[in-house]
This record gives sequence, C-alpha cells and structure tokens, in this order.
Amino acid sequence: MTSNKMPQGNELTKKRLRRIIFGTDTPAGRAFDIILIVSIIISVALVLLDTIQSVNQAYGTLILRIEWFFTVIFTIEYLLRLYCSANARQYSLSFYGIVDLLSVLPSYLALFFPGANFTLVIRVLRLFRIFRVLKLLRYLSEGNLLLRALMLSARKVTIFFFSVSLIILVLGAVMYVVEGPNNGFTSIPKSIYWTIVTITTVGYGDITPGTTLGQTIAAFTMLLGYSIIAIPTGILTAELSGEMGRKRDIRRCNNCLKTGHDHDAAFCNHCGNELEPELEPDSDH
Amino acid sequence: MTSNKMPQGNELTKKRLRRIIFGTDTPAGRAFDIILIVSIIISVALVLLDTIQSVNQAYGTLILRIEWFFTVIFTIEYLLRLYCSANARQYSLSFYGIVDLLSVLPSYLALFFPGANFTLVIRVLRLFRIFRVLKLLRYLSEGNLLLRALMLSARKVTIFFFSVSLIILVLGAVMYVVEGPNNGFTSIPKSIYWTIVTITTVGYGDITPGTTLGQTIAAFTMLLGYSIIAIPTGILTAELSGEMGRKRDIRRCNNCLKTGHDHDAAFCNHCGNELEPELEPDSDH
Amino acid sequence: MTSNKMPQGNELTKKRLRRIIFGTDTPAGRAFDIILIVSIIISVALVLLDTIQSVNQAYGTLILRIEWFFTVIFTIEYLLRLYCSANARQYSLSFYGIVDLLSVLPSYLALFFPGANFTLVIRVLRLFRIFRVLKLLRYLSEGNLLLRALMLSARKVTIFFFSVSLIILVLGAVMYVVEGPNNGFTSIPKSIYWTIVTITTVGYGDITPGTTLGQTIAAFTMLLGYSIIAIPTGILTAELSGEMGRKRDIRRCNNCLKTGHDHDAAFCNHCGNELEPELEPDSDH
Amino acid sequence: MTSNKMPQGNELTKKRLRRIIFGTDTPAGRAFDIILIVSIIISVALVLLDTIQSVNQAYGTLILRIEWFFTVIFTIEYLLRLYCSANARQYSLSFYGIVDLLSVLPSYLALFFPGANFTLVIRVLRLFRIFRVLKLLRYLSEGNLLLRALMLSARKVTIFFFSVSLIILVLGAVMYVVEGPNNGFTSIPKSIYWTIVTITTVGYGDITPGTTLGQTIAAFTMLLGYSIIAIPTGILTAELSGEMGRKRDIRRCNNCLKTGHDHDAAFCNHCGNELEPELEPDSDH
Repeated sequence: MTSNKMPQGNELTKKRLRRIIFGTDTPAGRAFDIILIVSIIISVALVLLDTIQSVNQAYGTLILRIEWFFTVIFTIEYLLRLYCSANARQYSLSFYGIVDLLSVLPSYLALFFPGANFTLVIRVLRLFRIFRVLKLLRYLSEGNLLLRALMLSARKVTIFFFSVSLIILVLGAVMYVVEGPNNGFTSIPKSIYWTIVTITTVGYGDITPGTTLGQTIAAFTMLLGYSIIAIPTGILTAELSGEMGRKRDIRRCNNCLKTGHDHDAAFCNHCGNELEPELEPDSDH
Repeated sequence: MTSNKMPQGNELTKKRLRRIIFGTDTPAGRAFDIILIVSIIISVALVLLDTIQSVNQAYGTLILRIEWFFTVIFTIEYLLRLYCSANARQYSLSFYGIVDLLSVLPSYLALFFPGANFTLVIRVLRLFRIFRVLKLLRYLSEGNLLLRALMLSARKVTIFFFSVSLIILVLGAVMYVVEGPNNGFTSIPKSIYWTIVTITTVGYGDITPGTTLGQTIAAFTMLLGYSIIAIPTGILTAELSGEMGRKRDIRRCNNCLKTGHDHDAAFCNHCGNELEPELEPDSDH
Repeated sequence: MTSNKMPQGNELTKKRLRRIIFGTDTPAGRAFDIILIVSIIISVALVLLDTIQSVNQAYGTLILRIEWFFTVIFTIEYLLRLYCSANARQYSLSFYGIVDLLSVLPSYLALFFPGANFTLVIRVLRLFRIFRVLKLLRYLSEGNLLLRALMLSARKVTIFFFSVSLIILVLGAVMYVVEGPNNGFTSIPKSIYWTIVTITTVGYGDITPGTTLGQTIAAFTMLLGYSIIAIPTGILTAELSGEMGRKRDIRRCNNCLKTGHDHDAAFCNHCGNELEPELEPDSDH
Repeated sequence: MTSNKMPQGNELTKKRLRRIIFGTDTPAGRAFDIILIVSIIISVALVLLDTIQSVNQAYGTLILRIEWFFTVIFTIEYLLRLYCSANARQYSLSFYGIVDLLSVLPSYLALFFPGANFTLVIRVLRLFRIFRVLKLLRYLSEGNLLLRALMLSARKVTIFFFSVSLIILVLGAVMYVVEGPNNGFTSIPKSIYWTIVTITTVGYGDITPGTTLGQTIAAFTMLLGYSIIAIPTGILTAELSGEMGRKRDIRRCNNCLKTGHDHDAAFCNHCGNELEPELEPDSDH
C-alpha cells in the first residue's frame, strides 16, 4: 500500500498527512475520523430537519450558516485529500473521491440554482463517507463474509427475481382486465404497482379489488407472495451456512491436521495443540 | 438431440436455419436471440403503456402500427420455427410452441373481436418466450438446483398449505359470526378474503374488525401468520442446504477418493490431485 | 389394532364394515373415502355460499334441502362408525369421534335455535374430517417430520413469544401515553392491538400515529418486527435441518456400517451393498 | 452463592426467608412465586383495563382500591427482599432490584402528581419481574442458546442495519424531492417514516405516492424490503445451526470418544456405552 522509495521533505509531510487523513493507526488519525463522522452526521441531520417547515421558519438562517461552515470544512478536507493522496487523479475518480466531491458541490450549486431541492439527495449521500471510516474497523471481515454469500447467491436470486417479475407482469395485466379503471386499476402499469404492493405483503390499501374474481386473484397473489419469500431466504441461508462452515474449515491444526476449528479457537479441540492465529481473510483488500 | 443421418440440400438449409433460430452457438444465432428478446420487451412495454389513457390518446395509432409490425415479425418467426424444426407437430404442441402461437394470435383476434381486452393478458404472456432464450444460458444449472429443492419440499409445503387453508376457513367463519355484516364482513367468502389479507400480513385496511373480540381474534391471526411463515422458509432452506451439500458430494477425487469439493474447485483440497471438470448436472435436459 | 379372537357372524360383518369405513386398503374403502371427501367439501362450500346475501335469496331453500340431505348422510355414517368401531365408547370420545358428531349436530340444533349463526363455525369444522382420510395417505411421514421439528422448536419459540409479548405490552402502554385518545389510541388494549398490527408488519392503517414521537416509536416497532421474524424462522430451520439430517443418519449400510444415505437410496454409496428398505418412522402411529 | 459461615438466630431466619423469596426449591418458595406471578398479571391487567373509558367509569374506584392493595403487597415484598438479601445494596442496584422498586413507585408518585399517565408505562414494566421467576425454570438453557446465537450474529446484523439505515435515509430524501408536500411527504423525516413503513412491508397507507415516478420508486423499495429480509434471517439461521451443532459436539462418549450425541441421549449411538448426563451449559450463570 505504501511506496518503497525513501520519502523526503515535502514528501514526508504528505505521507504524515496521509497517515492522519486516510489511516486510523495514529491517535491523530483516529481523532480526525471521529471529528469527520460527527461532522457528517450533524450536517446530514441539519439537512433533514431543515425540510420541516416549522424548523425552517424558526432556524432557517442558522442552519444555512452551519451548512456553509461544514461546506468549507469538507472543501478543505477534499483539497487535503487531493494533495496528500499517493495518486491524486486515481483518488478523484475513485468511488469515495466522487462521494467526497459530491458532499461539497451542492452548497456551491445552490448559489447558482436557488430552490433546486434535488441537491438535498446529494447532501444525504454524504452519509456514504461514513462507510470509508468504518471500513477500517474490524467489522469488515464479517461484512466480507456477508458480501461473499450475497455474491454466491446472486445468480439464484436473479433467476428468482426474473421469474417473480414475469408473474407480477402477468398478474398485473390480469387484474387490469378483471377489475378495470372503475376500481382504481386505471392502467396496466398501475395494476403492476398494485401487484407489487400486494405480493410483497406491503398492502397500502390505496387500491383494493372490488369484484369477487379480483379478490380471489388478490388472495392468491398474497398467498403466493407470502410463501415465495421462502426462496431468497432459503438461498441466502444455505450460502451463508456453507460460507461460515468453509471459514471454519480453513483453520487446520499443524499437529493432527484436523480442521473445523472455530475462528476464535486458540487450541485444537482434537489434540490440544496450539493453533496458529486466524488468517484475516480480507487482509489483501 | 440431432439426427444422425446425413443432411442434404433443402435439409441442410433447414438445419442451418434451425441452428440460428433454436441455437445460440453461432454469431447469427446469438444475434437472432438478442433481436427477439428486444422485440418481445418492446412489444410488451407498448401493450402496458397503451392502457394508460393519456398515452393511448396521444400515441394510440402509432402503437397500433408498431404492434402490427411486431405481429408480422412474430408470425414469420413462428412459421420459420414450424418449417425448420425437426418435428413440426411436436414443436407446435410443445409449451413454447403454444406460447409462440399465443404471441401472434391476439392481434388477429382483435380484428374480429374489437374491444376484447382479455387479449391483453395473452399479449403479456409473450414474455415467457424470453425464458426459452435464457434457458440456453449458463443460469440454468442454478435454476435446476432451485427447482429440485422446490420439488423436494413440495410435499411438506403442500401439507403446510392444506393446514393453513383449514385455519383460514375456520377463522373466516369465526370472524363472520363475531363481526357480522355491519363491520364489512358481509359473507364468509369475504371474511375468508379478510383472513388471507391478515394472515399473510398484507393488511389493506379495507375491512378491519370493529369489536373487541374481533380485534383480539385479528391480533391472534396476525401473530399466527407472522410466525408460521417460518415453516415454508425452514422447509425450503433445509432442502436447499441438503441439495447444495449433495452437489459438492458428487465431486470425488480420483486419487484419495475424498468428496466435498466446491463445484468450482480444480484440485483436491486433501491430496492436491487434479479434479475432473464438474459434470453439468442438467446436461441431459 | 384388530382383536385376536376369531370373528364370527355379526362380528364378521362389523369387521368388514370397519375395513370399508375406517380402512383404505380395499376398493370399497377407497370409494367410501372419496365420496366422503367430496360430500364434506360440497357441504362446507354450501355453508360458505349461503352467507352471501344474493345467493341466499336465490337458492336459500335449495341449499337448506341439500344441507339436510348431507346431515342425514353424515348421521348414518356416524351411527355406522359407532356400530362397527372396535370400541364405540373410545371412538365417540376420540378427537375424530367428536368432530364427526359436531358435523351433524348444528343442523339439528338449528331446529331448536333458529337464527343462531354460531353453528356456522361448527359446520366449517367438518373440514377437519378430511384430515382423517388424508392421514392414511403417504403424506404423513413428511407431516410427522414437520411436527417433530415444530415440537423440538416449541420451547425456544415459546421463549421468543413470551419476550415479544412483553415488548408488545410495553410498546402498547408507551404509545397510549405518547399518542393518546385523540389519534385513535383510545385505551392500552387498543394500543396493544395497534402494536400487534405494526410489529407483525400487517399495517391496516385504521390507527396510525400522528405525533413525531409516536411515528418515531412506530418506525422502531416496524424495524423490530421486521428483524425479529428471523428468530422463529432460524429456530425452525435449524431444527428441521437437524431432523432431516438425522433421518438420513438412521439408514446404515449392513456391510460397511456407514450412515448418511438418502431416504430413497437403494444401494450404499460407499461400498455398493444393497440397503434395507427404509423403515417408516411413523409406522407405530 | 450462599455464605459459608454458620448462620445463627436472626441470620437463620433471613436465610430461610431468602430461600422462600429468591429460591424455588421449597414448596413455600414455589407457592410464593406462583402468588407473585398471579399478582403481577392481575395488577397489570387492571392497569390495561382501567384505560378503557367505559371500564374506568364503571369500576374506576374498585380498580384503584385493588391497585393500592397490590402496591402494599409489592412494597412489603420489596422491603422483605431488601432485608433478607445477602447484600441489600447490591440487590437494590441490580436490574431486578430497580424493576421491583419501579413496580411500587408509580402508585406513590400518583399521590403527588395526579393525572400523570406516564406512570402507566412504569406499571406495565412490572411484567419484567415475571422473567426473574421464569428464569428459574428449565427454559433458560434454551434461552441461552438463543441469546448466544443472537450475540454471535450481532456484528453481521449491525452491518446489515447500518447499510439499511443509509438506504432508508437516501430513499427518504429521494421521495421527498420526487413527491413533495402535496402528496403527504411534508418533510424528509416524514419521508423517512414512509420509507420505513414501506421497506418493512407494514404499509399503513396513511401516506402513499401519487406520481408515477414516486410509485416506481415505491415499488422498488417494496421489492428491496421484501428480499433483504432474507439477510438477517440467513445470518441468524446459520449461527443457530452452528450453535446447535456445537452443543451436540460437546457430548463425547467416554468409551469410543465419538461426539455428536443428541442432548437428551442416554447411550452412545456408536458403541452403546452409557453417556454422562449433559452438562448444563448455563450452570455458571
């Protein structure tokens, strides 16, 4: 991760700065991360609160000022990251580089396009920056296991969702023909919306079938949605169990060569020999 | 799958055509499939959009023309399939033969029965043709595993649904007696509809219990539906885990005879011997 | 199940009749069962349809006559069962004996208490008689496995439901205090009803929180209900997997003594020795 | 748990009293526990019923008197517990000590703050005292297994909920921008409330999207919520299966050293040797 050439002078400052801003293994680095997380949470919370009319009327100006304060801070942070990153161009085009840029842009854009509230969404996206900080915590090996299981089940889940989509389309068309515009099924797309509301067991009740045949098909749709939820759950559980079992299989005792040790076991449960510390499966990420 | 006799002349053209239309192993075959999928998706999307009144008023004539364009294309395709299939009669009576026919019929039927919107449903069924094309992709071995697990759990799930149906019928009758027509429970079939809405946790809210006893029974129904969802999920997960474990057991090392290798493993993880490539479990489908 | 003493004369007729009525291994017995199932389904369907006002007005008298026809048939059947069962008293007090009696009583009761529609529920209970007939089918070994897994998870699920009940009570009380009667939370029992509607993700929408604090607690309740559903599902799945694995472990090869054979395997997959046919686990039920 | 010094006189009375109040191994102790559970249930049921206006008007005075009766009983019980516990200060600061205190305080507080109905919640908290009594039942080893599995999955579930929270925030902001105040999405917090109602498949229907884009995003949100429920379920199931398998692995036959015996097995299923009784895994709690 770090270059092998001897850093000198300016290069040394850059490297130290990088260690604080990008790293977490120094007290300064940890303090930087904590301040950053708190700033992000406060700034996003303010964005949310500012949309409540009564809050906006009472504290609108104050919130705007704090918003600019954070914008300036995040701008400085972004420039620092650009300056001290090993490869500024690569950073600026990376996922987190773009998120960092997006977290300061809206405030500047609002100067030119006042009232454009689509910037609200971009401001909330700041939250994704928290992921970078948390990424450095130990949580990640668990997250990787989850991601691997999700990826392993992706193909099966895709088939499942493709089949469900076809069923939803057909049921939507059937309900449009059966119920018709008088009962709120004004078009097939609207019928499909109703089918999704029903098959996922959300059930708003803004559109409900009125005819006996429609209610019968609706009942069938509900029972279908109620039971097929078992399929993605079953797929993921089976993959996760396999993935977790595999993780235990990786640990092998050097004495008796038996596997299957828990990932936090220190001694072999077959011969009592001390086990090597667990290899971090995501150490190369 | 292919006949062993030497194809000649006309027979050769037929075979080439068949390879393009039914196969995916030639560039022309792949191009044909992609054009077909795109045509199906566009034609179905138009059917959906045409039911939106504003779209129909603005573009109704245009959509009708495009619909006829696709109808002609699909008709030609159907006739070609009939012509070049190894056994035309068998094809025309197969599942996909009927779906292919159904995807062109509605437009012709609409000439004789204008305004019959039940043909909408048949038009949407065109989507099932996509399955044929996708069937040829590698997705299928995963789909087969899913299907096998579903079939293995079918008997247990049937018992579950039979028991749940009885509970729904009894609860429906009880709620009709308890709540009565004044609270919207106008008949036992309607009460059963309400019970299904509640037990599947859909909860439209178009019919809700008004009496204290009715609300108590409703609360019980909800808790029941909330917890018994565990049963089909548990059944399918157990079968899927078993099925996936079995698939790994199939791969046996020729050197040390140990099983349990991952389906993408190239070497035995016990002795390092090279494994035979995995047998495609659905190669004979 | 059958007495060992030599049946003679009247006793022989009884035994034959018993074989037809209680058994399924003779053509007459199977015919009897099929007629019985059809009769039960028709009679229950009529009970359901009769509660629809328009059907009742048009066909009320006809349905009443058919109802009496079935009542007479079921009465004769009940008397026959009493007569030919090995132990009439034991039969009349058994679960199915009581269900059989309950399936004829309502019609007679209706003579004395006209208009008492609680008898509707009892009439629907007739459906449980279908279970007796189906019990004799092969489905049952699967059903027993399900029941065993349910019984094994019963204690864990009880703890789960006890804890959830406490949470529901406390959340109900909190929401009553927070929202109050003005938003439809007129009493703690009603608040508890709302909490159950929310935590089970049914969500009728007949009572919804109006205050910000109430909506926050509601959001928390939803997320709680959404995630804790994992607990009973996890418990049952783990028990079912164990139970199904155990079933495979029961089959042991007499040659190499290895276990783990599929329940439909005919030969040992380790040494090729022929396996004994599977013992029906519920043969003694 | 008990002190080793010879108890004498007053100390002996204390110890006996402690055995009755805190223990369950004497007839008097069991009777005390049963009376306590019944008292708690009755007193909480009265709190619930008293909030129903009609009940309050008819029986308000009677309920108040019974409430005071139980308050006096619980006060005496609390003082006795303080008196006879081995360490009064430790008891009074323990979880159950505080719950015991909280179960008597509200009635006294109501003398000084009449009409403060927040005390209702505290009164319902009395129910947690039932846990202490049930703790002594055999249920607990199962509960511990559940708790261990929950703790093992806590980290993965935390990552899941953190990711879902981000998705909910972003979707809430998007829906606020798309739908706006006219369709009931009056602020981002309200939009987030709607997103939680939708993603957990509760679906009240008090706020529903009105625009086509909003309904499309809503449909996506529902399908997302419908499918990601698989993740916590999969995590917990995998941990529970592992935990239950581990429990069986703990039991080892002293003769043939094989493991994997059921927790209620008395003999080794490999060599027939008698197994040692199962060690209670929570004996040191």
